[in-house]
Amino acid sequence: MKTKILSNQEPKGTRDWLPEEFAIRHYIFETWRKVCRQYGFEEYLTPLVEYAEVYRAKSGEDIGGKELVTFTDLGGRELCIRPEMTPSVTRLVSKIYGTAPKPLKFFSIANFMRNEKPQRGRNREFWQLNCDIFGSDSPSSDLEVLQLSLDIMAAFGAPKGSFKVSLNSRQLLDGLLALCGKLADEQKIAVVRILDKWQKLSKKDLEARLEELGLSKKVVEVLFRFMESETISDLEKSLPELANNLGLLEIKKMITELQNLGYDHIYFNPAVIRGFDYYDGLIFEVFDTHPDNNRAMFGGGRYNGLAELFGSASFPAVGFAPGDETTRLFLESWNLLGDKFIKKSEMFYLPLFDGALIADIRKLAGQLRSEGKNVLVGFEVQKINKALEYANKKNISQVVICGSDELAQGHYKIKNMKTGEEKVSSINDL
Amino acid sequence: MKTKILSNQEPKGTRDWLPEEFAIRHYIFETWRKVCRQYGFEEYLTPLVEYAEVYRAKSGEDIGGKELVTFTDLGGRELCIRPEMTPSVTRLVSKIYGTAPKPLKFFSIANFMRNEKPQRGRNREFWQLNCDIFGSDSPSSDLEVLQLSLDIMAAFGAPKGSFKVSLNSRQLLDGLLALCGKLADEQKIAVVRILDKWQKLSKKDLEARLEELGLSKKVVEVLFRFMESETISDLEKSLPELANNLGLLEIKKMITELQNLGYDHIYFNPAVIRGFDYYDGLIFEVFDTHPDNNRAMFGGGRYNGLAELFGSASFPAVGFAPGDETTRLFLESWNLLGDKFIKKSEMFYLPLFDGALIADIRKLAGQLRSEGKNVLVGFEVQKINKALEYANKKNISQVVICGSDELAQGHYKIKNMKTGEEKVSSINDL
Repeated sequence: MKTKILSNQEPKGTRDWLPEEFAIRHYIFETWRKVCRQYGFEEYLTPLVEYAEVYRAKSGEDIGGKELVTFTDLGGRELCIRPEMTPSVTRLVSKIYGTAPKPLKFFSIANFMRNEKPQRGRNREFWQLNCDIFGSDSPSSDLEVLQLSLDIMAAFGAPKGSFKVSLNSRQLLDGLLALCGKLADEQKIAVVRILDKWQKLSKKDLEARLEELGLSKKVVEVLFRFMESETISDLEKSLPELANNLGLLEIKKMITELQNLGYDHIYFNPAVIRGFDYYDGLIFEVFDTHPDNNRAMFGGGRYNGLAELFGSASFPAVGFAPGDETTRLFLESWNLLGDKFIKKSEMFYLPLFDGALIADIRKLAGQLRSEGKNVLVGFEVQKINKALEYANKKNISQVVICGSDELAQGHYKIKNMKTGEEKVSSINDL
Repeated sequence: MKTKILSNQEPKGTRDWLPEEFAIRHYIFETWRKVCRQYGFEEYLTPLVEYAEVYRAKSGEDIGGKELVTFTDLGGRELCIRPEMTPSVTRLVSKIYGTAPKPLKFFSIANFMRNEKPQRGRNREFWQLNCDIFGSDSPSSDLEVLQLSLDIMAAFGAPKGSFKVSLNSRQLLDGLLALCGKLADEQKIAVVRILDKWQKLSKKDLEARLEELGLSKKVVEVLFRFMESETISDLEKSLPELANNLGLLEIKKMITELQNLGYDHIYFNPAVIRGFDYYDGLIFEVFDTHPDNNRAMFGGGRYNGLAELFGSASFPAVGFAPGDETTRLFLESWNLLGDKFIKKSEMFYLPLFDGALIADIRKLAGQLRSEGKNVLVGFEVQKINKALEYANKKNISQVVICGSDELAQGHYKIKNMKTGEEKVSSINDL
């Protein structure tokens, strides 16, 4: 039957990982995994899909709205591919929260999808680490989440000053909104969403949008004073009413404690808002400072109220989520990849010099594998120079030489392709 | 704002993995990865989604049809969540086939989705290992794919006889169809699909369906003689016309060669058909023989023609794909899980006995982590007995004891929860 010829390109906003690209990804994932385990976090996973309403509820107008990838299952239920992890892991934890010893420290590495316009560092399909602590309202849990983010960057070899951490607080933003006169809950959400566009829109546009919401010029001016504060002392001067806000005090304490632990480049930043509707405490973002890649890499924060969605009593929660692509761009910008991530186990290439020897070659491969070696066996008869050429092309450093002469003498040779050295070993009973 | 209360159950046909469940999964994945690397296979990945037509073309009437989960992207293109890997990896390889050194030995571990009725061992979302060799038509590549399947079972500790391998061949099936008189291509596909239901339907139903296709009673009788052959010599006797079929000769040779390498429980089985339309050579399935879990676990085969879909010259390909759930059920049935899969790195619990010591405790945790230890820090002040109780509940074997007395003396104690033993170590400058 004739079939139509199809494109061999991946769908827009998604990507293939060939082995050399996969190796970088694997290095990133294993680094995440190692640091999370060092802090006693345990790995879990949730399904690829959720009922769409789980994400419609609190993920914000974009991620929980027009970007949501939805479909209908056999039973007519509306499902979506998860666009992020926080509501899913909250759902999972709500099933066990009552009986599990607290706090729960959980992490996962998973894929996600958003139907958005792809851009540098943001694909439609992406992978994320999600680290969260459930069941602790202690500032120690916020601190640990920040510390873990910082230690992940350190584990990648990030040099001092290559990134900075920006802190803000939803409690502080609530304090700010309280200065704006009586606002309905919906208005508050709308104001926060507009402020979240601080770095994308002009001051004039922001002003217009805020006034459309019914805010007076005076109130808009208060909001602008907040957003233009470059430091905590700036803010304390321009809006002294907020100087004792609990969120602001928490930010100050967090910066001091992290500095005491030896971390630096941690700042207050009023423009860190985080688009999700569920945050309700400290929020933060980590920024790459490289001139070629100056961008927010990832963020997180506290979301104590989200569990109420699932009818359980609310429980405290704080977490963060770095992505694979932003991490890779950071590592490339700062030239942190080099060869070290390849960490390939050594490979042995065992070519076939004579078709009649195939059964012996297979048995020798089995012997070498049982010694813990990784062995690639040649399927087609090759001359020695072709075999060495193949090994070179595939970056294989060790070639096992075993022809009829070697078999007759009960040994084989291993040729090191870098040094040219040959080592003779004897063959056990094949 | 009031929000509707949502269910905290995962969508039908999908599942959460809590840490203790995830640990089993991780053990399965890492075992797959280890054995694949031992054979020189390299890890790749493709996107979660593909253009739907990639799967409509050759994945068969169920997987590529009514079970396909589809949606439309921003650009109006019809996408699907991948229901299997073979067409995706063929697409990926077709991009590099011309220039890459052959053969390519590739593996991936990925998630998939099919909108089907969930049953034991078959969820709507599932994970699979996919191992494939591209660019070799040598019987050595078929053999290696079988050997790798068998060695994966061995790596899980599968006892002799706990599973069997059933072989068949599409070439042999083509030989059979040639005995049935002139059939159109569409008729051939339809016949193969009906024979694929051999173990599900009664003989009468099968007969009726085949006759509906326009096959004569005599032809149906030929097909039944084939399907009822329990061994190769049965088949040679009942259909001597097939005795020299190249597919049958290949099966015989494969069984002999695998036996020479020390593998057993490998048989010819006419009922192994494999539902995918793309297979065109040797096909196989691995069966669990446990009375409580007697089922096909996974399978594979040769699919040389599939690359034509993507307009490239066709290239030889052979592979197989075990799933996470069928593997877990096998391990559980044969009691192969025990404790060994947990392979958790040792965890140290460092409780907080006095709030005033928090900064010192954090620094000590940092010191222990830099020594390579995994350290869980207590966030709330605990008495020693509560701390030990928590460690017990969480299955943590080592508790680090460091209160004000210890700090004053510049040391800390590590209590082994199993033996009760305590070890004193000195603290570096905090």
